Amino acid sequence: MGIITLTTDFGLKDPYQGAMKGAILSVNPKARIFDITHLVSAGGIIEGALIMSAACRFFPAGTIHVGVVDPGVGGFRRAILVETERYVFVGPDNGLLSLALEGENIKRAIELTDKRYFLSEVSNTFHGRDIFGPVAAHLTLGVSPALFGPPFERPASVSLPQPSVRGGVVNGVVIYADSFGNLITNIKRDLLGRGREDAEVSVKGAVIKGIKKTYSSAPEGALVALFGSSGFLEIAVNNGSAAAKLGAAAQDGVTVR
Amino acid sequence: MGIITLTTDFGLKDPYQGAMKGAILSVNPKARIFDITHLVSAGGIIEGALIMSAACRFFPAGTIHVGVVDPGVGGFRRAILVETERYVFVGPDNGLLSLALEGENIKRAIELTDKRYFLSEVSNTFHGRDIFGPVAAHLTLGVSPALFGPPFERPASVSLPQPSVRGGVVNGVVIYADSFGNLITNIKRDLLGRGREDAEVSVKGAVIKGIKKTYSSAPEGALVALFGSSGFLEIAVNNGSAAAKLGAAAQDGVTVR
Amino acid sequence: MGIITLTTDFGLKDPYQGAMKGAILSVNPKARIFDITHLVSAGGIIEGALIMSAACRFFPAGTIHVGVVDPGVGGFRRAILVETERYVFVGPDNGLLSLALEGENIKRAIELTDKRYFLSEVSNTFHGRDIFGPVAAHLTLGVSPALFGPPFERPASVSLPQPSVRGGVVNGVVIYADSFGNLITNIKRDLLGRGREDAEVSVKGAVIKGIKKTYSSAPEGALVALFGSSGFLEIAVNNGSAAAKLGAAAQDGVTVR
Repeated sequence: MGIITLTTDFGLKDPYQGAMKGAILSVNPKARIFDITHLVSAGGIIEGALIMSAACRFFPAGTIHVGVVDPGVGGFRRAILVETERYVFVGPDNGLLSLALEGENIKRAIELTDKRYFLSEVSNTFHGRDIFGPVAAHLTLGVSPALFGPPFERPASVSLPQPSVRGGVVNGVVIYADSFGNLITNIKRDLLGRGREDAEVSVKGAVIKGIKKTYSSAPEGALVALFGSSGFLEIAVNNGSAAAKLGAAAQDGVTVR
Repeated sequence: MGIITLTTDFGLKDPYQGAMKGAILSVNPKARIFDITHLVSAGGIIEGALIMSAACRFFPAGTIHVGVVDPGVGGFRRAILVETERYVFVGPDNGLLSLALEGENIKRAIELTDKRYFLSEVSNTFHGRDIFGPVAAHLTLGVSPALFGPPFERPASVSLPQPSVRGGVVNGVVIYADSFGNLITNIKRDLLGRGREDAEVSVKGAVIKGIKKTYSSAPEGALVALFGSSGFLEIAVNNGSAAAKLGAAAQDGVTVR
Repeated sequence: MGIITLTTDFGLKDPYQGAMKGAILSVNPKARIFDITHLVSAGGIIEGALIMSAACRFFPAGTIHVGVVDPGVGGFRRAILVETERYVFVGPDNGLLSLALEGENIKRAIELTDKRYFLSEVSNTFHGRDIFGPVAAHLTLGVSPALFGPPFERPASVSLPQPSVRGGVVNGVVIYADSFGNLITNIKRDLLGRGREDAEVSVKGAVIKGIKKTYSSAPEGALVALFGSSGFLEIAVNNGSAAAKLGAAAQDGVTVR
């Protein structure tokens, strides 16, 4: 099948994502490459992990998911692949892959050491092009994950803040503000149980009555709380930006009563 | 052939366009997906319709064009496909597809109701991933448009302001300012007839003498009027931005004498 | 193989890059198109040449590289292709292709004149869609470069400022600031010879001691000089932006002692 996805902080102007694709195609000219994003904030490992995990699970089994947000490139962090039942993940061992791995059954983790699968000359500053891309391309050619290097235990992970529940009150935080200005929280649907219609959501001093099903169930320009497409509680504005209206961003507290 | 184009307001940072591509590939791993844009202004139905219509007609017959600018997602608007002689268009029935449809011979319009062709679980907030993407993928597999749901009459449409002509004077408006700062108007070439060289174009207090053929026929930094690549009258600056020079934007009036 | 890369200043919002891809696919529906970038600054021929040259050499032999930064479109500049041992380059003859050509063995340069390989109607403002895209697509179908028009000598070229060396002191300039804020200079690795560890790099009043191997060999937030992934001396900040920290940009002087 040969599908590779890319999640990086390379940006879309510089030659980096293009060079990485060239390195992939030089190994397997038939590889099919799909961008999840190249616009992760520079060095934003947690942000990259969130975006990658939200998108990659919709791809077909057999997809190779490559993530490169890699401020420690050339230093001590491992270069790794993690094979799961459905996918193979490739990237630096700095936690970037960990949120995507949470939903998957891990078969093995391999440190990438065999230089036969790298670009012939490896730089100290661009392992997306020199290591991760070529390794992903070799995987699409059917090279067994075991051949890339020795197995190891426990890939590095990042952890998201967990919501707390006490006396019927859920305290969570905004974990991501998307380009629509929707505020995505860390509060999962099943945490709230029944009686959602009556819930009261507070964020940045605003109080939103009830949890709705659609953005357009609030009047134009008004705040609405709903469960978004990833199953997390989301605060939005119908035809507007909740982030702008509330001056809210990642880390801001959210309370559900 | 299996070519799908995407025109959305999802942005390029968030996981949405990637998730949608994953959902498409999960139905047809061989689908070939081309982005027209994901940078339509949030909820900008008319803007999305303009961009989609300007690009999609250059694709080969058989292409599936998907548009998702969908502020009413999960509410009352229909999810539709429209089959024309050359293409199939898929998206919300809010006018987004209508400008692209103007140039095509419509064969039938179908409301998307058959859940067999949707993602197994459909959210209320992300039909690009859950409905439109999977439907497009099934179309590339050869599923007949008629199988997706019942036919209906008259897809929703948006209308652009039309120029008026009186006493040899044409009054139009800027309908789009592109990233070069070129101001694209609603005045088509055939509206002006002969004698173009003598025409005088006024916009935002500036008067431009004559309609030229190329950007570079004006001196560097000077205003130039010409018929752009879509056949509409365009005001530009040679090696510069007419939008910035004139402080002009969509809706501003343009007069041709 | 049918791989085409695109380097343009079309932006990612407007219909232009999509229309160009449609025009390519209308000639060869199996063409595989990879974006190097569409975010070259409007009319930025040297910037486009730098980005194109840094990325295109990683693509497999047989790739068709198309560049369109074309402020003189419709005017006197030639439309050309240049065949090298590994690639074919297609674009306007304004120097855009020249830096990429520096590393290649040129076989012949052809002026694109045969309208059979163009879009049926050619505009004066959008040769990416009307000429360069269709020509690239015909090349992927195996049309011989000689058939597109007459050969000519000496494609136009841009030249980068060259560093000077005197008395053990190298004077160069920043030629590009990337999206990480890394300042890429025109000083190649071999220019410095041995004793790099002791070198002292000055830029915008800051002095950096030693040339390191990785970004992370400097403390967080500190300046570091190293040879980047293209082999040029680069000034960076570990987990930060050297461009922002120094207020530096392309053209700023850099001295190595």
